Amino acid sequence: MTDVRTAEIIAVGTELLTPFRLDTNSLYLTEQLNSLGIDVRSKTVVGDEPADLADRLRQALARADLVVTTGGLGPTSDDLTRETVADVLGLRLIEDPALVESIRTRFERRGLRMPEANRKQAAVPAGARVLPNPNGTAPGLWLTADERVVILLPGPPREVRAIFEAAVQPELDARASGRRVWRRVLKVAGRSESHVEEIAEPIYSKLLTEDPPVQTTILASPGQVELHLSARGADGPAIQSALDRGVTALATALAPAVFSVDGSSLEVVVGRMLLERGWRMAAAESCTGGLFGGRITDVAGSSAWFTGGVVAYDNRVKVELLDVPAELVATHGAVSEPVGQAMAHGVRARLGADIGVGITGVAGPDGGTAEKPVGTVVIAVATAESSHVRTLRLVGDRPMVRVQAVNAALDLVRRALQ
Amino acid sequence: MTDVRTAEIIAVGTELLTPFRLDTNSLYLTEQLNSLGIDVRSKTVVGDEPADLADRLRQALARADLVVTTGGLGPTSDDLTRETVADVLGLRLIEDPALVESIRTRFERRGLRMPEANRKQAAVPAGARVLPNPNGTAPGLWLTADERVVILLPGPPREVRAIFEAAVQPELDARASGRRVWRRVLKVAGRSESHVEEIAEPIYSKLLTEDPPVQTTILASPGQVELHLSARGADGPAIQSALDRGVTALATALAPAVFSVDGSSLEVVVGRMLLERGWRMAAAESCTGGLFGGRITDVAGSSAWFTGGVVAYDNRVKVELLDVPAELVATHGAVSEPVGQAMAHGVRARLGADIGVGITGVAGPDGGTAEKPVGTVVIAVATAESSHVRTLRLVGDRPMVRVQAVNAALDLVRRALQ
Repeated sequence: MTDVRTAEIIAVGTELLTPFRLDTNSLYLTEQLNSLGIDVRSKTVVGDEPADLADRLRQALARADLVVTTGGLGPTSDDLTRETVADVLGLRLIEDPALVESIRTRFERRGLRMPEANRKQAAVPAGARVLPNPNGTAPGLWLTADERVVILLPGPPREVRAIFEAAVQPELDARASGRRVWRRVLKVAGRSESHVEEIAEPIYSKLLTEDPPVQTTILASPGQVELHLSARGADGPAIQSALDRGVTALATALAPAVFSVDGSSLEVVVGRMLLERGWRMAAAESCTGGLFGGRITDVAGSSAWFTGGVVAYDNRVKVELLDVPAELVATHGAVSEPVGQAMAHGVRARLGADIGVGITGVAGPDGGTAEKPVGTVVIAVATAESSHVRTLRLVGDRPMVRVQAVNAALDLVRRALQ
Repeated sequence: MTDVRTAEIIAVGTELLTPFRLDTNSLYLTEQLNSLGIDVRSKTVVGDEPADLADRLRQALARADLVVTTGGLGPTSDDLTRETVADVLGLRLIEDPALVESIRTRFERRGLRMPEANRKQAAVPAGARVLPNPNGTAPGLWLTADERVVILLPGPPREVRAIFEAAVQPELDARASGRRVWRRVLKVAGRSESHVEEIAEPIYSKLLTEDPPVQTTILASPGQVELHLSARGADGPAIQSALDRGVTALATALAPAVFSVDGSSLEVVVGRMLLERGWRMAAAESCTGGLFGGRITDVAGSSAWFTGGVVAYDNRVKVELLDVPAELVATHGAVSEPVGQAMAHGVRARLGADIGVGITGVAGPDGGTAEKPVGTVVIAVATAESSHVRTLRLVGDRPMVRVQAVNAALDLVRRALQ
């Protein structure tokens, strides 16, 4: 039995060749396979066409130690993965009476009779191992052919996950090389990708030449940059400590912009800091329209550190609900540091919070002026003792400006709490 | 010159074989190709490995009329699509002096010198047509080989779109069969997928047998179901009228749950209705924490119909900023129809709006009781004359409950305005 080192993933389904659906199972499968030390060398999507699937399966088997298919195990006439794979591997399909019973029971538990069409889901290629599906009627299947492994999984993500975790992961672990991949994620706010790259490059170039080598990937999204470190090997503790050294070196060089080295999101980090202090926050939002509050309350239990907020889209709301002096708006404009600060102070006082946040800006596409172009956003944080304010010039379209404004405001809160 | 009827898409880039990145360009490309009547038969992702790309390219050329690649046209040593494709097609690479100049100019406009590495982006396979890239340094390339077309595009989505629209679409249109695909989208709120399916099935089965046949696909997301109708043919007016008949039949059967037949989102539809009346809306949110306001203000110009809102996460905020009587909360609980209605009325009065929205619920995972389990959400709408309230039992995790609550509240506003 040879080690499984390389894999290819084939997603089957005509709906995955429309403009509306992506194969997202492959992200989960790649993460799982990588953690076992198995590289994914290629991903393919084919429609519900047996000839296409047979073609791709033969090609994949000629290249990779493992082929995982998703989809095409359903009860309808379109679902032909089982039949096609059996055909390519020269295996007969045999109905498994125990499987017929378990599918029938599944229907009966819901007070339904098993439709005759579902009977085909109990057909098993000779020699295949059945991988039970706790979340659906189609079981997974594990086949071997000339030292290659072929795993058939259904299409729905929760079925893929359940089958993989219970039945595929342990078995593949035994067949994998033992050279697992370990990962760490470092998250950075308020820095551009090129800025992070410039500081990080000398460090990650060096990490790559060490033993064991640590690889770094930079991923940027609006208002946030992530550094993904990974290393591979059989010696877990040595790998872990190499990754720890890498994380420390990068976090030191990039501090104080690094907000997380354990994968936590900015809203989770801010929530944790507030909880530690026993503080509660309130937010006054204009251009973000509620998105800041939405992000904070994404975190379960956030009522412990978030009292609420005011969406002051209209200037009258800024004056009446946040006690922003009308003459401040008249003199400096709604998008100005004095108004942002007054919003932060006002929402803090009105909502009885320890820390207040103010966000006001021009999200676009209209409303920009020469002095305050689209992308101009003021963020402010106020506590009983201190006050912080910054004016940002953000680049991008309306959704990008808004998400960057939320990230920048969360980061300003983080810095104010440090 | 034969018609281009089938295509395959190959995305190149090792980052697309990690657990972090998906090839999303293929959705855009599929939409564009389908609208020209070209079917996408397969999609493949390979890493930055010339041998892998060469292998997949040869196989794709044996099957499809058109192969589109994305990625691997950058200036670094990893970027090898240009070289690999030239090699597979047996073409020499020749540096294009005009292209060197245009890349150099691009850098100079930003006050930079062109790095020597970027010179390779000016190498063009003999006989290839250069497709200008307004958004980056890597131009696209159009090649032909034995009646097959190969199009090389860069990886960044905005570069893919710009090149496709300006240089690929018109040329492919001339090479396509003329049997274009036309589409319509019908959007439904407040109905489950199976409910929509049950009503729509007899209609779309019939549409499929008509001439020209109209295909229907049902796509469900939390709180919303979409019906995508498509038909293919050369006779534009006949196709359009077949689609119109299909849309009318389905919209009639599913009314009043259909909120859009032109692709508009629920927040756009609601905004349009408010604008027509000259009305302004305000929102009081508890469990959605600002997401309702966030959705409404996703629409540019929403200040014309949205004054703002109050995020009343803490019950004290409900009482103090929304004038919800404290005894109402004490008697009925924060998640109750009387409190939801009082929030809608309170926010309407406080923010001087014509219509007020109240949302209060148990988003989970904690906080549920036997009487009010996780997923219990009250939505309320109040105007000067009328008041609507509904209690929902939503299924799913915290993010799913919240997004369904926002959709349901938007839909209740829509129905109240009808």
